[in-house]
Amino acid sequence: MSFREYPSKLLENAVNEFATLPGIGRKTAFRLVMNLLRRDAGDVRKFGESIIRLHDEVYYCKICNNISDTEICSICNDMNRDRSVICVVENIQDVMAIENTHQFKGLYHVLGGIISPIDGIGPSDLKIDSLEEKVKSGGVKEIIFALSTTMEGDTTNYYLFKRLNKYTISLTTLARGVAIGDELEYTDEITLGRAINNRNPYQQ
Amino acid sequence: MSFREYPSKLLENAVNEFATLPGIGRKTAFRLVMNLLRRDAGDVRKFGESIIRLHDEVYYCKICNNISDTEICSICNDMNRDRSVICVVENIQDVMAIENTHQFKGLYHVLGGIISPIDGIGPSDLKIDSLEEKVKSGGVKEIIFALSTTMEGDTTNYYLFKRLNKYTISLTTLARGVAIGDELEYTDEITLGRAINNRNPYQQ
Repeated sequence: MSFREYPSKLLENAVNEFATLPGIGRKTAFRLVMNLLRRDAGDVRKFGESIIRLHDEVYYCKICNNISDTEICSICNDMNRDRSVICVVENIQDVMAIENTHQFKGLYHVLGGIISPIDGIGPSDLKIDSLEEKVKSGGVKEIIFALSTTMEGDTTNYYLFKRLNKYTISLTTLARGVAIGDELEYTDEITLGRAINNRNPYQQ
Repeated sequence: MSFREYPSKLLENAVNEFATLPGIGRKTAFRLVMNLLRRDAGDVRKFGESIIRLHDEVYYCKICNNISDTEICSICNDMNRDRSVICVVENIQDVMAIENTHQFKGLYHVLGGIISPIDGIGPSDLKIDSLEEKVKSGGVKEIIFALSTTMEGDTTNYYLFKRLNKYTISLTTLARGVAIGDELEYTDEITLGRAINNRNPYQQ
């Protein structure tokens, strides 16, 4: 059945909002909204507020830009971690993927994206200046480029290398155990764990 | 990748809420939440509020129990519709499915469920008393039972027949063009439209 007319504008609005989510069509959106409508008011309020609160109250760590409930995230706050190694990743999902391998004990730096001219994302849209500041301020021995092995990831690797090559630190990349063309966050834990252990010096 | 640990409790809460929706697993929930997190604050607030507002502000029509933005829904308010024919349906989706056939010009009565002993739903949980009141107060010539052709639907049909048989009105059911065992809301419009036109007297 198609949904040409909704009996309520409020219903239609909620369906439209759900249909903006990736992979959710209008029919699925309608079923999700009907499910919410059948629940208790408190339950639905909790659902709606969890989204609003997440967006309004969450912090992005001042050091690594990872998502956090506090100004400094739990990884940057952990004094047992090796502060001389920084793993550069595209986004929060990638931090979680690498954390789940339990192979990395350094810190992270979340770029918030990768260089992608086609999407209009240039170096100035990413947290690259703050990465360079960390290197300048000393104490960093190694930067690991842990970006997706796509063209955009390679471009970003190259740009970072050009920016950071003048400092006397090692610049490494994940071992190419990660299949070329794969998105980092979908890589299985064993491959990803091995790739971070077998990391290699960055080569142009 | 599995998500054993989330960097933020707020993030985890939002993912947990999305994962309560039917057909949404934890990984999908996480992707939906990350999508929301990347959007503007106003956009996300609109999303969350559309759900809360739907639940808090929507009306259930005082006459037919259909969802509505006003106390009386647009169908019950429409003076061009035949008030002597009432089509009894399980839920709002079924009203929308029949409306989309453009074959029915009477009014609806939404039961809010069907009799299902296995789910603990008995006649008293449904809007059956108010249906009988409508018949008692006169003006109704025909009641159409448009329930799913499942065991629960048949049980409800039988119960309604027993309750309403004493009144001098016709009790009809949808023509059995609807495949036995099918849920009403998934039936295609042509079959459903034909079934409502070829409706038959209710037979025990």
